[in-house]
Amino acid sequence: MPVNKQWLLVSRPKGQVSPDNFRLVESPVPDLGPGEVLVRNHYMSLDPYMRGRMDEGKSYAAPQPLDAVMQGGTVGEIVASNNPGFVIGDKVVGPMGWQLYGKSDGVNLRKVDTRQVPLQAYLGAVGMPGVTAWVGLNMIIAPKAGETVVVSAASGAVGAVVGQLAKQKGCRVVGVAGGAEKCAAVVNEFGFDACVDYKAGNLAGDLKAATPGGIDGCFENVGGAVLDTVLSRMNAFGRIAVCGLISGYNGEPMPIENFRSVLINRLKIQGFIVSEHMELWPQALSELAAQVASGQLRYRETVAQGIESAPEAFIGLLKGRNFGKQLVKLI
Amino acid sequence: MPVNKQWLLVSRPKGQVSPDNFRLVESPVPDLGPGEVLVRNHYMSLDPYMRGRMDEGKSYAAPQPLDAVMQGGTVGEIVASNNPGFVIGDKVVGPMGWQLYGKSDGVNLRKVDTRQVPLQAYLGAVGMPGVTAWVGLNMIIAPKAGETVVVSAASGAVGAVVGQLAKQKGCRVVGVAGGAEKCAAVVNEFGFDACVDYKAGNLAGDLKAATPGGIDGCFENVGGAVLDTVLSRMNAFGRIAVCGLISGYNGEPMPIENFRSVLINRLKIQGFIVSEHMELWPQALSELAAQVASGQLRYRETVAQGIESAPEAFIGLLKGRNFGKQLVKLI
Repeated sequence: MPVNKQWLLVSRPKGQVSPDNFRLVESPVPDLGPGEVLVRNHYMSLDPYMRGRMDEGKSYAAPQPLDAVMQGGTVGEIVASNNPGFVIGDKVVGPMGWQLYGKSDGVNLRKVDTRQVPLQAYLGAVGMPGVTAWVGLNMIIAPKAGETVVVSAASGAVGAVVGQLAKQKGCRVVGVAGGAEKCAAVVNEFGFDACVDYKAGNLAGDLKAATPGGIDGCFENVGGAVLDTVLSRMNAFGRIAVCGLISGYNGEPMPIENFRSVLINRLKIQGFIVSEHMELWPQALSELAAQVASGQLRYRETVAQGIESAPEAFIGLLKGRNFGKQLVKLI
Repeated sequence: MPVNKQWLLVSRPKGQVSPDNFRLVESPVPDLGPGEVLVRNHYMSLDPYMRGRMDEGKSYAAPQPLDAVMQGGTVGEIVASNNPGFVIGDKVVGPMGWQLYGKSDGVNLRKVDTRQVPLQAYLGAVGMPGVTAWVGLNMIIAPKAGETVVVSAASGAVGAVVGQLAKQKGCRVVGVAGGAEKCAAVVNEFGFDACVDYKAGNLAGDLKAATPGGIDGCFENVGGAVLDTVLSRMNAFGRIAVCGLISGYNGEPMPIENFRSVLINRLKIQGFIVSEHMELWPQALSELAAQVASGQLRYRETVAQGIESAPEAFIGLLKGRNFGKQLVKLI
């Protein structure tokens, strides 16, 4: 009889996340009731939004409960089924959390086709991060050919997709990433026109050089100094889609000094959460899947091995140690 | 033969505006060419946006040129006409600037009906400030009945109109103004539900008490601490129309600390300039004129006497010494 392993959140971080905030427990694989299925998870998704849910207090989602399995997206395989909609061997994506096995009534599971798209891509470029990129770019930035679009965290699971989609629309696309290696890949692998290394110590000058015509759209994942510098380069009627503010997720102050650019340039700044735009998911997923299958849309993954590695991999993600989609391989 | 008096901008302010930045000159009343009219100005409009134009550098409008007549809106009367579209005695609104007489080919003049609306109201509630209120409220905030709308500079020419229009839509309307006297009038004269005195030293606590259900819409004229406090009280899917940031017009730093509210609450923040939405002016002016004529829409004016008083009145406006629309009476 297989044993389930689960990561619980046992305390809330004070500032930076610590391994002590989690506890690994073992339990029997759950019994199935009528209509239920058992999923053996193959990959867990680690995402920056999880940091916000570890805190108490008002946010767009309820806090992750203490002493409960960490919530999160997974891909896996049906290994037992009392549900006529699923048979053993079906590959599914769903919110099974940080554990080896999960059970479900099937409502929150979606069967996926792995013949042309790798299973784990449904947690990345053909999953929530890819749709996030698609929605923020198309719904808020809505760039026109010839415009300049800046993407922060450009080597990340979301940013890399934003940049490639914006290039397809005929934009000049400039990434911001941390370190020469990431910046080189953003240009060479993902086809951005330029990438600014925010760790190189000359953010304002380097961003100016990379955006000689100013900035018309920004897909913001970082906040703080990166956003402030972008604001100083915005053109009239620019649009900023606020998808994440990872520079402040541990409670760091991140004052914005250049807010007057909003008035001077009649900017639109809009925060969004991809799960609130479910009506756009089918079109987005269809386009993203086709591009991944054809090889047009490229992505990178950082894969941690084994469920035991999840907390350290998550802490590394928050520090920018990953490149592309951060996954934990469970099988 | 009457003499024209004109205020020129002769130097750019370093920080606060000084009377030395202006010079009053006399000149002959201009001769008219074919198709031209001569306007005797009755009132000059003083507006916060003029401060921005006194600086050099990138903004939404070209800087006010040095050694030229200060630009600005006026209302007056046709006193000579070579244009078949205008007869002597016609009342007009136009951009004649800080002077007693101006000439025009008529293109930038609009004849106004003063039978039910006082002439100077076309510089206020039935003019640019009123349309600014109408456009920001309807186009960006778009409030629904039952929502809470906050208006900064609530006793000003724009803010007082915003609040009254929002009340008509069934909103809870909370003003922010400087001093007990202004706050009392915002509630008692303009019908706001509450008004917070930002000079009373308890902005965060007072705004929280006045917005027990949080804030859904904000019409922002001030920026700085007022905006930051509003951000901390915004509800999900809130909208902030950025019309002015007068707290920073002299170059003061005005850091925004609570930017993460944009993400947490999926806010939309949008700057706008009323002159870029000319398609909305006819409807707005028609509605505003009807409401002023019927007495439904109330407003206050602060009237400085004589063209000589213009610089001091303008400096007072920037310091919040006015109540309602700041005018200079010229006749």
